[in-house]
Amino acid sequence: MAYIQIKDNLPGIVGLLFSKPSTGKAVSSLAQAILRGPSPLTIMERELIASYVSSLNGCRFCYQSHSAVVDEIAGQLDYTASAIDNRDGSSLSEKMKALLRIAGKVQKNGKDVLPEDIDEAVRAGATDADIHDTVIVAAAFCFFNRYVDGLHTEPLKQQQDYVKPARSLVRFGYLYPNFIGRFFMKRMFRKLVA
Amino acid sequence: MAYIQIKDNLPGIVGLLFSKPSTGKAVSSLAQAILRGPSPLTIMERELIASYVSSLNGCRFCYQSHSAVVDEIAGQLDYTASAIDNRDGSSLSEKMKALLRIAGKVQKNGKDVLPEDIDEAVRAGATDADIHDTVIVAAAFCFFNRYVDGLHTEPLKQQQDYVKPARSLVRFGYLYPNFIGRFFMKRMFRKLVA
Repeated sequence: MAYIQIKDNLPGIVGLLFSKPSTGKAVSSLAQAILRGPSPLTIMERELIASYVSSLNGCRFCYQSHSAVVDEIAGQLDYTASAIDNRDGSSLSEKMKALLRIAGKVQKNGKDVLPEDIDEAVRAGATDADIHDTVIVAAAFCFFNRYVDGLHTEPLKQQQDYVKPARSLVRFGYLYPNFIGRFFMKRMFRKLVA
Repeated sequence: MAYIQIKDNLPGIVGLLFSKPSTGKAVSSLAQAILRGPSPLTIMERELIASYVSSLNGCRFCYQSHSAVVDEIAGQLDYTASAIDNRDGSSLSEKMKALLRIAGKVQKNGKDVLPEDIDEAVRAGATDADIHDTVIVAAAFCFFNRYVDGLHTEPLKQQQDYVKPARSLVRFGYLYPNFIGRFFMKRMFRKLVA
């Protein structure tokens, strides 16, 4: 059970967004800006960075939510788990491997990112914009993960429960700031925790 | 020097906000929501939590920026440094001491916050809203700190340079999302790095 009272016992970050709308809008707009806004990285690449950092932080709700998004886009169950497990292997581009290494360092502390990490990414074809967007996504998930786990929010019951929210995230993005989006979001998650 | 090209060589997070406006607006709106939006915690208390977490993460730009805000409100130079050094001592309320302990755990990982940490804060008079706002501020600074340091942005040259921005933050809040605020913000920081 969460450490504080949560609106309608909604799960994970969803319950937090609905419990305090003034911060809920800002948190959700940030997710939309970094994961769906303009970027040279694809949505799938950014959601993979988000999943990787969430797995490093051990945040179950965030990892399951965002890996389900990557799996949905890839059209392959367990795509994320396999990409993370074999991240130095051959399935990802050299650029993506270098960016994930930077993301892994950001997860520890920003100061852990060294000039040679950047050089390696640049040699693999990464631009300033790729590096910026990798760092902001990795850093932001160090926020979301701590917000979700620091207040001990509830994850969804089964892995299967993350599929429907993931489909909504792929189709509509991060809906909370939008009035109609909020209505459908609440209805979907209420059914999942019922 | 920063790892990526920064608009007008502006310092710290300021340069990042101006380098990518789509994320700049979201990042700055988040800071405004958590540090100036509705909360049972005072602005000074929230800025102190922000300073404490930034010092734990070793983020010089964020620590200097936000401790200068606390010092400005307290009307006492080095108020923050002394409050953090003696945080289990007598100058802070028991509630604030317990909330800083929670913030310190969030800085490590959300999962480090235990039921007994929450109980202690509640016994010292903390409400759900106090605890929520402590966790969101502490978690968000794990984002801001990593964003600033992961891209190796430049801090300001001298401690004294943080005073003017701090006065602006006390008076006007986090200005970036506002067009006129952006104009004055850029002018102020351009002079500081000239």
